[in-house]
Order: sequence, then structure tokens, then C-alpha cells
Amino acid sequence: VPPDARAPHIAVVGGYEASAAVDADAETVGRLLAAAGAIVITGGRQGVAAAVSRGATEAGGLTVGILPGRDRREANEWVQVAVPTGLGETRNALVVMGADAVIAFPGRYGTLSEVAFALLHDTPVIGLGAPEVEGVVPAATADEAVRLALLSVTRTP
Amino acid sequence: VPPDARAPHIAVVGGYEASAAVDADAETVGRLLAAAGAIVITGGRQGVAAAVSRGATEAGGLTVGILPGRDRREANEWVQVAVPTGLGETRNALVVMGADAVIAFPGRYGTLSEVAFALLHDTPVIGLGAPEVEGVVPAATADEAVRLALLSVTRTP
Amino acid sequence: VPPDARAPHIAVVGGYEASAAVDADAETVGRLLAAAGAIVITGGRQGVAAAVSRGATEAGGLTVGILPGRDRREANEWVQVAVPTGLGETRNALVVMGADAVIAFPGRYGTLSEVAFALLHDTPVIGLGAPEVEGVVPAATADEAVRLALLSVTRTP
Amino acid sequence: VPPDARAPHIAVVGGYEASAAVDADAETVGRLLAAAGAIVITGGRQGVAAAVSRGATEAGGLTVGILPGRDRREANEWVQVAVPTGLGETRNALVVMGADAVIAFPGRYGTLSEVAFALLHDTPVIGLGAPEVEGVVPAATADEAVRLALLSVTRTP
Repeated sequence: VPPDARAPHIAVVGGYEASAAVDADAETVGRLLAAAGAIVITGGRQGVAAAVSRGATEAGGLTVGILPGRDRREANEWVQVAVPTGLGETRNALVVMGADAVIAFPGRYGTLSEVAFALLHDTPVIGLGAPEVEGVVPAATADEAVRLALLSVTRTP
Repeated sequence: VPPDARAPHIAVVGGYEASAAVDADAETVGRLLAAAGAIVITGGRQGVAAAVSRGATEAGGLTVGILPGRDRREANEWVQVAVPTGLGETRNALVVMGADAVIAFPGRYGTLSEVAFALLHDTPVIGLGAPEVEGVVPAATADEAVRLALLSVTRTP
Repeated sequence: VPPDARAPHIAVVGGYEASAAVDADAETVGRLLAAAGAIVITGGRQGVAAAVSRGATEAGGLTVGILPGRDRREANEWVQVAVPTGLGETRNALVVMGADAVIAFPGRYGTLSEVAFALLHDTPVIGLGAPEVEGVVPAATADEAVRLALLSVTRTP
Repeated sequence: VPPDARAPHIAVVGGYEASAAVDADAETVGRLLAAAGAIVITGGRQGVAAAVSRGATEAGGLTVGILPGRDRREANEWVQVAVPTGLGETRNALVVMGADAVIAFPGRYGTLSEVAFALLHDTPVIGLGAPEVEGVVPAATADEAVRLALLSVTRTP
């Protein structure tokens, strides 16, 4: 059975460095998204992107990594479909462009740019300990973040 | 078993309109690439991109579509992983960026730009009735095009 | 005398809609930047971008507009060098990329993405009633914003 | 008097390495374009881009360089308005996007991609010893190339 373009596509963003707690939460988010049949999109590199891709892959899900550089090999090992862009950090706009909803973990300015682009294009953003930006829906746990993200997709016309 | 980031990634480019003969050849190319375990990358829309994605999907392969617009739904129905870019035709550079080799069918200036970008980045291009550009390796049949493309990947260090 | 590539390049960002007070402040910022010999970069469209370009042009300065679309004519009439990108809002990253410093007026998520990209690349951001983002240096008046922006350029190695 | 957004915008493309003859022709093209009040757009780096920008600047014209990297300082010294993009060679699409017409000197695949993008968007391309691509209008001399480029602008509705 091929991956389904009609499956929910959820982007997960966050810092290149993740604390142990964030790493564990991100892995859980990946596992829950995969279990729900969602395709997981990330920036394809270390930190939150690696943890969520690891969780999703281990649960049998599909992971896509939108990379800043031109070389597929800069993806972490749990990215199954690596998309080099050569756009540098400008690729942040593309990480969230293909998503029906975004889950945001703590990060720095790169994460903030992704949250801004998602909201700019009216894509729901669920924050898990993430930037306090007006319009981000806060979640208390990985479980709740996934539930809210999938719910927001269902509601999208 | 997840799709393998280490599988050969082959981009297939060509016109938005395809003759019956080109359509049949493109479908064959897609089927043969899938049978060889390659991931098929296209621009995700009509013509050659649709035919090759159809062939690959029906043979159980994985297809990726790098779209010009911002909406995943502009992909043809055989694109399994749709990557909206919002870059317009500038996304042509990205269609070939993630590929180990490119198979080029007849097309117009968009296809020419893709061939140019592939050659600019030293990615082998196999032409099947395609632009007479210095550096493109001509193939006589769909079979030969796929064989040459996969061979060029093997040879890449 | 040609415009000087060694002149300070200051990007000014803010919303597509500007209140009368913001419009007046933006025009003043443009006039002061031009008087200081700075090149003014904006997103090239309405609101803050138009007001600051108007002020700079009327004071004899040079204005550059980095446009989202493919058509030069979408620039406001005070943009002297219009750069169409066809990147849509992803061009926000480019608006601040060429700047030595950024002055941010109130705006929405597009402005937030520009502030995020500037800070991501260690470009100083002066805020004039603008987003409360960690790292943005607040200014109380147009005068102070210009002074701080030019000062930050002088300090850059 | 500010540069005029309504002036003809002519992109000049060609290789990073230029023979003495091409260098001289490119400088002449720059000088003639400036004399005609046109704004000259290039990729901003060495070879043809440097020669044409030198000619235009010395004749009092305005030159714009659309750069592949993120640093304004990678522009040659005759680029007056440097626009860093961080897009790598993908920026080739943007070099010709803002132009009413393109003059193409000999080059390699980068130049071919620029010619392809111009023709894709129905922008007239005048070739001066340049790629034999269907749709390129050949010119025999720098003088004729400039004349044909400006004429094609006049004819554009």
C-alpha cells in the first residue's frame, strides 16, 4: 500500500538542540502521528527533527525531511524521503508549507520563522512548550499536541 | 519496511503535454524504476510527470512530486509524497537537486531548465528523445534509459 | 555618483496596513535613512514599505523592493529598484538578507517572519512599536530607530 | 534624479570566465545600455557579469547584481545594488525574472538555465555568440544586441 497523499501531513518543528525531556516528547509525537496514519514533515536534521522522525519511523510511519542544503546525506537517518532544497534557512517556509497542521517544540529563531510562516498561511500551530506567539494553540502533553493537531486537520474544509 | 533514503533517487522530467508514445514510454520508465527499487522524483503535475508516477505507483514504487504552487492538491493522483514549494517554475531547480540521475523526455523550456540545472551540478542526465544539450547521454528506449540512469548512480562515488 | 555598495543597507519591515501614526513614522524613517546615505530595502508593497520608500525617495535616497511576485509593476511607486522573486511570502527571508540592520514596525506574521530571519542570521533588529521578540532592540521614536540602526552597522566588524 | 522603475531593465548573462573578446563586448554592452538609460541586471559575480557592470557603471548607469550567496560582499565592485539571495544557483531564475529582455553571452549550464527561464516566461533573449536554443534571437555585434534588446522592450505591450 503506497503512502497516501490524502493522509494528514503534520510538520513538527523545534530546535537543533533538544533537552532529554523534549527529545522524549518529540519521539512520542512521532510515534503517535505514525500510529494515526499521518505523514511527518520536518527540517530533516538534528534535535527535534531527529527525535520525531525516529519515533515515526520506528512506529512504521512515513517521514519527509525538507533540507537546507543540496545534499540528501545531510538528513538524519530516520528521514525516509529527503528533499534537498539548497535554500539555506529560507527552506523553513517550505517545511510548514506542505503541512495541514504544525506542532512546535521549543526552538530559537528558525523555529519562530516556521511558526510565523504557518500562521501567515492560516495553518494551525499547536505549541508544546513552544514560542508564545498569538495564534499558537498550547498543548500540555505530547498526546494532547497530536490530538489537537489531528483535530485541526479534520476541521479544515 | 520504510522507503530507503539510500535507494537510488531518479528524477524524470519532460513536458506538461505528452504524446501517446511518450506517455507509454514514461509509464514504462516509472514501472522499471520502481521494480529496481528507485524512488521517482518529478515536478508532480501532468504529462510526463503523471505518466511516470502512474507507472511507478502501479509497480509498488515510491513517488515524490516537487510542486510549483503552495497546495498539495495540485499534484497528480500518483504522487505519493507531494512537496509544495510556492516557488513557481523556479522549483525546477529542486526537482533535479535531490536526484542521483535524471531521465529527460521531450519538453519545452521548463524541461531545458531542469536539464541545465542537473548538468550544472554534475548530475548525469539520460535523454529519451530529449533536448540535444551537450552532456546529455542519449538512450534509444525506456529500458535503456532506466539501465543507463541506474548505472550512472552505481558509478557515482 | 553611483549608489555605493558600501553604504549602509537598512531593511524596514512592517504591516501591509499602517495607521496614520505608523505611516508618518515610516516616512520619517525613510527620510532620515536617505539623509544618512543609507540604501533602504523593503518588501516593495503597500503600508509601511510604501511610506518608508516615499520618505526615502523624496529625500533623494535609493530604495530597493524585494517583491513576492514575478511582476515589477507590483512595486509601489517609490521603489526605485524592484526585484521580482516569484517566491511568494518566502521572499521575506530575502528582504532582510541584504541588510546590515533592520527596523521593524508593527505588522503581523509576515513581519514576524522577517524579524525571525534577521535574528537567525545575527542581523540587528530595532523595533519601533514592533513585535516583542527577544533580541529586538526597542526604540521610542523614528529618530532613535534610525540612530540605533546606523550605530549597529558601524559596530559590525 | 532617482533611477526609474519604468526604465528598461535588461539582464545580461554569460559565463564566469570570459575571453578577452567577450569581456570587451560585455563592457560595450554595459556602456550602451547605460547610455540608453537602461538598468542592467546580472548575477553579480565575475566574468561577463563583471565586464558588463563595469561598462555600465563607467557610463553612469545603474547596475543590480542578484547574488547566489548570503553576503553582499560577493558582488563584483561594479555592482551598485547587490541583492543576496542565499539560493545558490537557483537564483539564476531571479536574474532574468526582473528583466524586460535578456542579452546572453557564451556560458555554460548556468547561462543555459537563465536562457531557459527567460524563454519559459516569454522574455525576449538576444544571443551574442550564445547558446543555440530555439527562440533566441542572434545578434552579430554588441551594438546590434543592445539595439535588439531595447527594441524588444518597446514592442512589449
